[in-house]
Amino acid sequence: MAFDPATLRFNADGLVPVIAQEADTGEVLMLAWMNAEAVARSLHSGRVTYWSRSRQAFWVKGETSGHVQHLIELRLDCDRDCLLALVRQEGPACHTNRRSCFFTAIRGGDEVEILAPMG
Amino acid sequence: MAFDPATLRFNADGLVPVIAQEADTGEVLMLAWMNAEAVARSLHSGRVTYWSRSRQAFWVKGETSGHVQHLIELRLDCDRDCLLALVRQEGPACHTNRRSCFFTAIRGGDEVEILAPMG
Repeated sequence: MAFDPATLRFNADGLVPVIAQEADTGEVLMLAWMNAEAVARSLHSGRVTYWSRSRQAFWVKGETSGHVQHLIELRLDCDRDCLLALVRQEGPACHTNRRSCFFTAIRGGDEVEILAPMG
Repeated sequence: MAFDPATLRFNADGLVPVIAQEADTGEVLMLAWMNAEAVARSLHSGRVTYWSRSRQAFWVKGETSGHVQHLIELRLDCDRDCLLALVRQEGPACHTNRRSCFFTAIRGGDEVEILAPMG
């Protein structure tokens, strides 16, 4: 069946959450959002393109930082309201210069930093 | 620093998205939502507890199906508005009886089922 981004179930803002996962290692890198056009652009260009909620604009990941996400495969969930992007990430995914945005773990009731910024 | 669920950045509905990832394999299983109380209950009980948006009620994953998610570790992202739950999933995570909800891939413009229901 041909995939049509319009058949996704977007929220009231016309967005779906997108989980970016490093294709090789399985590491979860970040979560961001796409509208239908961002989904289409990501699939067409092979470069992951989000919708920035703060800037209200398309956000080609890495366009300014160089930390590009090459799209390896896009998957959708059973409810069609969430996407999983398998990517090859160049450099850090996080704006704090860490490989993943999920660098804080809750251990023994405390917040613990488990990932240092990349050198 | 002691972790306080109230310091997370919840959306207008008081929720944050939570990515559930199988701790052993790195497979991304599903995305669901938690409010502050669900975060606290998950940490306290060690069983992943979501907030069901459709039922507007706490949802102890597996409570009726038996497909429990044991919480191995909870992580937060740089913006404090998304959680990553490393879990040990009993049985399928998806209500379609598949291990993961992300069983549909987009390949060559088509939707392709890549994961069969568990036997």
